[in-house]
Amino acid sequence: MNRLWAGAPALLDESSVVFEPPVATCTKICCLALNYAAHAEESGLEVPPEPVLFFKPPSALTGHNRPVTAPARTKHLEHEVELAVVIGSTVRDLPAERWREAVAGYTVINDMTARDLQLANIARNAPWDQSKGFDTFAPAGPYLATVDEVPDPQTLELTLEVDGEVRQRANTKQMVFGIPELIADLSDGMTLLPGDLIATGTIAGIAPLKDGDVMRATVRGVGTLINRVDFRSA
Amino acid sequence: MNRLWAGAPALLDESSVVFEPPVATCTKICCLALNYAAHAEESGLEVPPEPVLFFKPPSALTGHNRPVTAPARTKHLEHEVELAVVIGSTVRDLPAERWREAVAGYTVINDMTARDLQLANIARNAPWDQSKGFDTFAPAGPYLATVDEVPDPQTLELTLEVDGEVRQRANTKQMVFGIPELIADLSDGMTLLPGDLIATGTIAGIAPLKDGDVMRATVRGVGTLINRVDFRSA
Repeated sequence: MNRLWAGAPALLDESSVVFEPPVATCTKICCLALNYAAHAEESGLEVPPEPVLFFKPPSALTGHNRPVTAPARTKHLEHEVELAVVIGSTVRDLPAERWREAVAGYTVINDMTARDLQLANIARNAPWDQSKGFDTFAPAGPYLATVDEVPDPQTLELTLEVDGEVRQRANTKQMVFGIPELIADLSDGMTLLPGDLIATGTIAGIAPLKDGDVMRATVRGVGTLINRVDFRSA
Repeated sequence: MNRLWAGAPALLDESSVVFEPPVATCTKICCLALNYAAHAEESGLEVPPEPVLFFKPPSALTGHNRPVTAPARTKHLEHEVELAVVIGSTVRDLPAERWREAVAGYTVINDMTARDLQLANIARNAPWDQSKGFDTFAPAGPYLATVDEVPDPQTLELTLEVDGEVRQRANTKQMVFGIPELIADLSDGMTLLPGDLIATGTIAGIAPLKDGDVMRATVRGVGTLINRVDFRSA
């Protein structure tokens, strides 16, 4: 139960451990938009004909059991559970069938979003990266599950619970573009580096959070990432 | 003329020097959209009521005199000359009046854009970070001009020439949001780190490039950044 990584024996009590993000170095967080049809539908948008990418900066990373702190400029914070691919080698122009060469493992990421700021920018046809790029808006972990521990990343159940209520539930087999296609597309013209993350898109059920809410983001076989919501303005 | 940094004596012939990007470590490139009214107008968009941010990854950086290489997936590459602010210290929630505490200096950046890919994503209301995030799509340099060398960054002429033809020309005094406001806005909830860059937005005159075009991006008093266009598909 209290393990430092999947498959390890229970040697330590997790409550005595400070969790850093699961990557020590990271140059970019590549995030997929609209990569599950049910989430595209709830957002009122079409499923795209090819992967749609945006970036979060590494400064947004935080670890398991740490607070997600909303800056005072937002009043509407939402959760987005996702499977994250952890890049393990330097790759560019990698064909889909060689995708495994890029991957060190997997982790859970919660693509925190200031929905009010995002929607205001969508309304004026402007990019909305800032609404997802604040400090602590990329909680990830609790640990890196290695490729050996996750033989098939395309059959994993994802859930997001807030104070015990299940708000998001789906399976990675429902991705519009699977991990091989994502790695081929993202590395086409752009170098992926060790420690970079690919957040593979969220599932339906995004919803607002309030100060003090505890989010449990689970990818079965990968881990459960727990973060408490802290509204600085509260 | 052939100086390694502004103000240095001419000790070396530039042609014998390989120019790296002007920052050795960089965790994010913060780019401003629509920060000059004439460029917003040519893009058919309103000047935003507050700064609009998107990110380029550090993997997009390249140096002076190096090629900008367009991946085969784009046929429509455009230049965007900009003044870049080089962050020199770790800051968060910095008030506008203290903006100088964050700044190490300035450099020139050319916010290379695969316009066809960007417009396709705009048409489907999707983020377009990928169209600006490819390797070599953030040429910067030729060097870091320190704050002492640039006493007033808000009075600098910018030009972009292609094979001797001036395509972009304006002055940093025409920014919608000046550097103090940009640093205050970006650091509100997001940590800026040494080596991070703020690309302060491009000016009117964006236009397509062809294979072999030589771009000269100049910010007077900061430097002239020269890059040749290489279409991999050509």
